[in-house]
Amino acid sequence: MTRFFEDLAVGDTFELGTYDVTESEIRAFAEQYDPQWIHTDPDRAREESMFGGLIASGWHTAAMTMRLLVDGFLADTAMLGAKGVDELRWRQPVRPDDTLSAAVEVVDREAERSDRGLVRLSIRTTNDAGETVCSMVADAMIARRDDAGESEA
Amino acid sequence: MTRFFEDLAVGDTFELGTYDVTESEIRAFAEQYDPQWIHTDPDRAREESMFGGLIASGWHTAAMTMRLLVDGFLADTAMLGAKGVDELRWRQPVRPDDTLSAAVEVVDREAERSDRGLVRLSIRTTNDAGETVCSMVADAMIARRDDAGESEA
Repeated sequence: MTRFFEDLAVGDTFELGTYDVTESEIRAFAEQYDPQWIHTDPDRAREESMFGGLIASGWHTAAMTMRLLVDGFLADTAMLGAKGVDELRWRQPVRPDDTLSAAVEVVDREAERSDRGLVRLSIRTTNDAGETVCSMVADAMIARRDDAGESEA
Repeated sequence: MTRFFEDLAVGDTFELGTYDVTESEIRAFAEQYDPQWIHTDPDRAREESMFGGLIASGWHTAAMTMRLLVDGFLADTAMLGAKGVDELRWRQPVRPDDTLSAAVEVVDREAERSDRGLVRLSIRTTNDAGETVCSMVADAMIARRDDAGESEA
């Protein structure tokens, strides 16, 4: 069952499952996209970093959150694309062996055109301890069920 | 020569080099972090997508931009971390065989504490045709040269 714009109401919340973070994945992502020692060198990170150990790149955390969002929400949604993200915040470090979970809430919606709507999503990622590690707000374009356009506006 | 907070002025701009985008990397990133067919399935993307072909995940574009920022700016900067990103926008699709370039501009600065400052960076990523594909604003914490604290505030 595909979820269309009409199926989403402000306040709807979806739990998105979990993602197991590994040291090898933290290092592999960072070697390619964010090669700073705090993400790539466990020994130096343990000795010198203010976090006391290796932490994931913030972009890696965002990417893992996206994977949860795709599997737990977008895969069943008539998603057309995203215009952008605001208020992306890295609130706590993500470390090897963390298990992340995420949730998405519909915080605003607007019937932008006859064939699609714009939905504002608030996405929150948490660790095993229940701490929020990352949060963001994203504007997604979602297809309307009836391309002919209802009177909703 | 490490660049400290005191070395950065509003208006300073740094060119960040180039990144060659490949179809295999677009697909590999998306298989792991954003498995939507528009990023993973070239045939379906060519036939069904409004972009007429495979495009990179927006998070992949952000990650490639981060790599340019690390190599071209952060590697020589006394970077302590980032609080977050605002106004992240995906303005044009990124496609296989694009060559991305990026630039960063200092748009605001504040001597937050005696040991560090907060610098607002505007980052813009462009393709071969000179189109902006991605832009964002990031707040970075950067160490001050003199931990004892100057009178600047």
